[in-house]
Amino acid sequence: MLSGNQILGSQFVQGSENAVHGINPATGELLEPAYAGGSHDDIEKACALAKIAFPVYRATNSETRAAFLETIAEQIVALGDILIQRAMDESGLPRARLEGERGRTVNQLKLFATILREQEWQGVCIETALPERQPPKPDLRMRNIPLGPVVVFGASNFPLAFSVAGGDTASALAAGAPVIVKAHTAHPGTSELVGRAIQSAVKIAGMPEGVFSLLYLNDHAKALSLVSNPVVKAVGFTGSRNAGLAIQRTAFARAEPIPVYAEMSSINPVFLLPHTLQHSAETIAQGFVGSLLMGAGQFCTNPGLLVAVKGDALNRFKEVATGLITGSAAQTMLTPGIHAAYEKGVQRLGGHSRVNKIAEGKAGTTNQCQAALFETSYADFIADPVLAEENFGSSALIVVCDHAEQMLEFIERIEGQLTATLHVTQTADAALVKKIIPILELKVGRILFNGYPTGVEVGRAMVHGGPFPATSDSRTTSVGAAAIKRFLRPVCYQDFPEEFLAEELKGN
Amino acid sequence: MLSGNQILGSQFVQGSENAVHGINPATGELLEPAYAGGSHDDIEKACALAKIAFPVYRATNSETRAAFLETIAEQIVALGDILIQRAMDESGLPRARLEGERGRTVNQLKLFATILREQEWQGVCIETALPERQPPKPDLRMRNIPLGPVVVFGASNFPLAFSVAGGDTASALAAGAPVIVKAHTAHPGTSELVGRAIQSAVKIAGMPEGVFSLLYLNDHAKALSLVSNPVVKAVGFTGSRNAGLAIQRTAFARAEPIPVYAEMSSINPVFLLPHTLQHSAETIAQGFVGSLLMGAGQFCTNPGLLVAVKGDALNRFKEVATGLITGSAAQTMLTPGIHAAYEKGVQRLGGHSRVNKIAEGKAGTTNQCQAALFETSYADFIADPVLAEENFGSSALIVVCDHAEQMLEFIERIEGQLTATLHVTQTADAALVKKIIPILELKVGRILFNGYPTGVEVGRAMVHGGPFPATSDSRTTSVGAAAIKRFLRPVCYQDFPEEFLAEELKGN
Repeated sequence: MLSGNQILGSQFVQGSENAVHGINPATGELLEPAYAGGSHDDIEKACALAKIAFPVYRATNSETRAAFLETIAEQIVALGDILIQRAMDESGLPRARLEGERGRTVNQLKLFATILREQEWQGVCIETALPERQPPKPDLRMRNIPLGPVVVFGASNFPLAFSVAGGDTASALAAGAPVIVKAHTAHPGTSELVGRAIQSAVKIAGMPEGVFSLLYLNDHAKALSLVSNPVVKAVGFTGSRNAGLAIQRTAFARAEPIPVYAEMSSINPVFLLPHTLQHSAETIAQGFVGSLLMGAGQFCTNPGLLVAVKGDALNRFKEVATGLITGSAAQTMLTPGIHAAYEKGVQRLGGHSRVNKIAEGKAGTTNQCQAALFETSYADFIADPVLAEENFGSSALIVVCDHAEQMLEFIERIEGQLTATLHVTQTADAALVKKIIPILELKVGRILFNGYPTGVEVGRAMVHGGPFPATSDSRTTSVGAAAIKRFLRPVCYQDFPEEFLAEELKGN
Repeated sequence: MLSGNQILGSQFVQGSENAVHGINPATGELLEPAYAGGSHDDIEKACALAKIAFPVYRATNSETRAAFLETIAEQIVALGDILIQRAMDESGLPRARLEGERGRTVNQLKLFATILREQEWQGVCIETALPERQPPKPDLRMRNIPLGPVVVFGASNFPLAFSVAGGDTASALAAGAPVIVKAHTAHPGTSELVGRAIQSAVKIAGMPEGVFSLLYLNDHAKALSLVSNPVVKAVGFTGSRNAGLAIQRTAFARAEPIPVYAEMSSINPVFLLPHTLQHSAETIAQGFVGSLLMGAGQFCTNPGLLVAVKGDALNRFKEVATGLITGSAAQTMLTPGIHAAYEKGVQRLGGHSRVNKIAEGKAGTTNQCQAALFETSYADFIADPVLAEENFGSSALIVVCDHAEQMLEFIERIEGQLTATLHVTQTADAALVKKIIPILELKVGRILFNGYPTGVEVGRAMVHGGPFPATSDSRTTSVGAAAIKRFLRPVCYQDFPEEFLAEELKGN
């Protein structure tokens, strides 16, 4: 019964539950085939397989797991254009973006292969005995082991890099944890293709079958029951605040609470320092609008908030930004649901008595994002928390301060964010920036100078995280090398004879 | 109003709430003076002070903080015998133990001073820009910053090493976090003395006053309201499971959930491998009883469970253990409440239809722990979860297996533990031990060979932690160098001009 990796759904397993269909957001057309929704039995099956796989998989050494991750990367590349084509159909994202995202997905897997080979992830610390000391000091050896099977929720906005074989899966597999992916219903076919690539890699690498499972679950209660399963020891999630909080509540309510790494929402404020704005209003406006329009603004790091002081320089900024946004073509959004939520957000801001719409992009067709730029005063912004809510898409709000020091108050008041950006090129702004940084770093995971938050580099020094509600756990990052630490915990071995020690703990 | 470090309670601040009195557990006598309980206003005051202190304190460099920790250590030593005397009066613990514990407390502070000077705690990672790459790679620099003010709950059983200036306080202060200690009501005078030593160190080192506060809170709701205060960003706790879970629930229910490091309960199973038991039953019995009786068993790592196979060797073990326990003098427990709970636990086991009491120590006087050794079968143990509950004190339960492989099933069934111990000196036991270790390490924070879990070495490779319910967060340790990581999170600085970078992030 428990045979083959559980890629449940599709034509291969007759799930008993409501089927999941992809939808082409550009046309609204239902895509074939239907992917049978996983049942509670399917969830139990995937968890049972993961439980069986865990001891075998975690006993593999770093080199074996590194090679496995590289094989997954190869198998994804080997899918060829069918993957890109299907992802285009299901997401409405353009070819170039998806080809780039495939590259990033493959690079993430390779990064973790490198991290594994470097061995530092094991956190080995050896303190040899001091038998002469009073009291005698024992021999103590520490290393990291994986927490156990991990559930990964695929994200809608990165159908490759944050989905079935995305950063959460790559880092959990690197840590030695079997992974059960809950496919995002927005791209079931893309998910299946990548799932089958992983399944092939599992076979080629001779890994236990339950090291990877893929489930299609099309109701929230079922997805949460996966989080509740006692086999599961950690969860990775990227998506909406409501869904993230529901997962966290479920995880905390278990008999054994488990860590949840939920990356939830962020409005990514961009601060235009006054002298810099005076000097470069037009250039910054161009860069800002470029970042805002990229991918229809469907990024966790979309710059949704711009903070600047009123006056002539800001007017010049607005003039250029307005021109660019007004001329911008509408872009297809990922799903009808995301488009509807975006429209609602735009209406909420547009209809707000204290907010002015200062620009909107060209109108679009089915499920297309019409970019929008709004403006409000600092006083009005802080008076209504609704204005600080994320509106997922190419929508941004300019918060107009009366004077530059108001930026400090603003920072004190905002919630946790993934990023914040400072535009500072003029010496006259330096003093204020030196006051801003220590306050700002308490609120964010990453601070950028003179750039834009979109385009997250996958490296060793990256932090894609931040205080609540940007994420549920600010102590980590979901992008970059340090993401592996999320799925590890330390164990100490005291006075172990050499023969019983793991290889990496032997010697001194 | 907010003047001086908030050592609230004692004769210095007229708290409005019910006063806390120390009790000499050896006599039941109420100790003077009364320590006025902190009010909600006092909690607000301590939090307001911590908030003000945080930016100033976290901006200090590693050397400044290291010197501050060393000054705290000096000030504790400078208290002299008054501290030991007061701790003896309040805890019933003997002089030698408390002198040793003072040494450990001082060494913990010095360890974190060393860790600070080594700089590795900062987690600095620098990736310089690659402007020629397509797309250009930005300059990325990562470092750790403290989460924010930390609340520490003093533990009853280590009035020095796990209390006001204990491991949680030392590691949080090292991380750059102001600390608010909720004094354990079992040793208010000891707490005040140590609190004043820290207060002196704060003055000598020129630290902001709110870097340390001490509160006496004698009802649970008030203690939990401290956890709920938005200024507080993490909690350290050592104590009972019920209290730990209540703190965790409160922390998770906040608008901004925060990490809780609660070290809650553990029965620390000791496994006697059959051939080793055959060979060394008498010696192991001596060591085991020594560990069980130490400090009246009032340790998180007390060996409360002994697992062995039935037969002649176990009978020899029991004979020696019974003799030693029967002859053992009763020892004063920490508080009347702990003594009452111990007695209740002993009665619960003694009155259990499937449990035999095989030995008890000499009867004692007021609040004294009469050691007890019980026995049950593997089948009976797994049939009733009550038998796996911690009984804080010199009480242990022998679980008699029918055959050695049953140890594997046993391990699968137990909850998370701080420690587990294997007694293995005979080659014939090696094969089973190699099966045990990979299962056991999923359940515990530390595995010991041929020793006893009491006596936790404060070092770099120590893990005093473990899966739930041993702790609320298995990814960390509350003893040893790695404890500092609990109060840190990473931040990434992208494309920062040199002048805006923190010192440790400059250069490449």
